[in-house]
Amino acid sequence: MTLQSAKNTDKIPEPTLRRLPWYLSCAKLMGEKGEKFVSSTQISRQINIDASQIAKDLSYVDITGRTRVGYEIERLVQVLEDFLGFTNLHRAYLFGVGSLGGALLGDSGLAHFGLKIVGAFDIKPELLGTSINGIPIYHTDEFEARMRTERVNIGVLTVPISIAQEITDKMVAGGIKAVWNFTPFRIRVPEHIVVQNTSLYAHLAVMFNRLNEMNT
Amino acid sequence: MTLQSAKNTDKIPEPTLRRLPWYLSCAKLMGEKGEKFVSSTQISRQINIDASQIAKDLSYVDITGRTRVGYEIERLVQVLEDFLGFTNLHRAYLFGVGSLGGALLGDSGLAHFGLKIVGAFDIKPELLGTSINGIPIYHTDEFEARMRTERVNIGVLTVPISIAQEITDKMVAGGIKAVWNFTPFRIRVPEHIVVQNTSLYAHLAVMFNRLNEMNT
Repeated sequence: MTLQSAKNTDKIPEPTLRRLPWYLSCAKLMGEKGEKFVSSTQISRQINIDASQIAKDLSYVDITGRTRVGYEIERLVQVLEDFLGFTNLHRAYLFGVGSLGGALLGDSGLAHFGLKIVGAFDIKPELLGTSINGIPIYHTDEFEARMRTERVNIGVLTVPISIAQEITDKMVAGGIKAVWNFTPFRIRVPEHIVVQNTSLYAHLAVMFNRLNEMNT
Repeated sequence: MTLQSAKNTDKIPEPTLRRLPWYLSCAKLMGEKGEKFVSSTQISRQINIDASQIAKDLSYVDITGRTRVGYEIERLVQVLEDFLGFTNLHRAYLFGVGSLGGALLGDSGLAHFGLKIVGAFDIKPELLGTSINGIPIYHTDEFEARMRTERVNIGVLTVPISIAQEITDKMVAGGIKAVWNFTPFRIRVPEHIVVQNTSLYAHLAVMFNRLNEMNT
C-alpha cells in the first residue's frame, strides 16, 4: 500500500485544509489545459510543495491515485470541491455594512466557494431597506426575528472593533454556529462556536514587516 | 529584569506579528473608554491569550511596561501602529478588477492600515479609463510604463487563477517587491520577493469543515 492509496481517517489538520485549495486550483488549471491525469509529483513541481506532503494531504480525501499516472483530474476536482464544502451553499448573514462589509456583499465570487450571504444588518438609517448586490440590509434589531424565519448558521463580522464582542454575543444568542471574523478584534465565544479569523490588517502587517526586512 | 522590560532584538516571528494587531485593537478600545494604563494581565483577560505570551510578544516592540500599572495606552497604540506599518502609507497597484478586486478597490478601510491602492490594471475594455472609489483602471499593458513614473512596491493579485502566475511574473519583472495574493493559486516568485497569501476560500474551507465537525 502506498501513501497515495491510503485513506486517512484521522481528523484533518488545519494546515492540510489550507493547502487543499492550492491542489484544487492546480488540478483545475491542468484540466482546462486538456490534461486527464495529474500526479503529486506534477503538482509538486507547479506549486513548490513536497510531493510526499501532497500525497499525505490527499490521503484525507476520498481519492486514490494510480501508480505512474496519478489522480484522475476530473474526479480530483470534484472530490476536493465537495470535501472543501464549495459545492454546498452555506447561508450567511453579514453584520456591519461599512467599507469592508459593503465590499464583501459586492463580491459575488464567494458564492462560487459555497458562501451565500442572504442578508445584512446595520443600524445606519440611510442603509436600512436598501440592498447591495441584491442582498437586503435590515436593522440589527431585526436579527433575532429573521433567524426564526430564515435560519442561517454563519455570521460574517465586519463591524467596528468597539462593538465586535457585543454583536458576536448577539449572533451566538440568536443561534449562529460559526463566526467569520474580519475585525482585528479577538472575539470570545462559547466552546461549541466556530471562529474563523481573517484579519486583512494582520496580513498587511506581516507583509509590511517582511518588505522592510528585505530592504534593510 | 522582567519580561515586560526586556527589549527583544531577534527577528520577530510571524505568529507574534499576527497577534500584535489584537493587542492594538484591545488597547485602542480601552483608551476610548478613558483608561490610561493597561497590563498584559488585563489584555490577557480580554482576549484570552496567556499574559506571559503577550509580554513576550510586546518585548519585540519599543515599549516598556511599568510594574503593577502596565503599559501607557496612548504610547502602546502609537508604538504598535508604527511598528505594524499602519502609519506609513504603502502604495500599491491592484491586478484584476473582477468581483473581489473591485470590492477591495471599494474598501477605503485599507488606507487606515497603511495600504493605498493608487491604480488598478485589467484588460476588459468596458473598465479601461473608468475608476472605482477614485482609483483609475488602466490596461495591463500600461503597467511597466506606469511603474517608471509612479513607482510602487506592492501588487495586489486578484486575477483568475489561469493567469495568476503570468501576472505575477509581469509584476516582478516590472519591479514589484511584494505580492498580496488573494487567489487560491500558489504563485512562484524569486527569493527576494515577499508573498502574502490571503485566500478567503481557504479560510472558508476551514470554517465549513469545523462547522461540519461540530454538527456531527
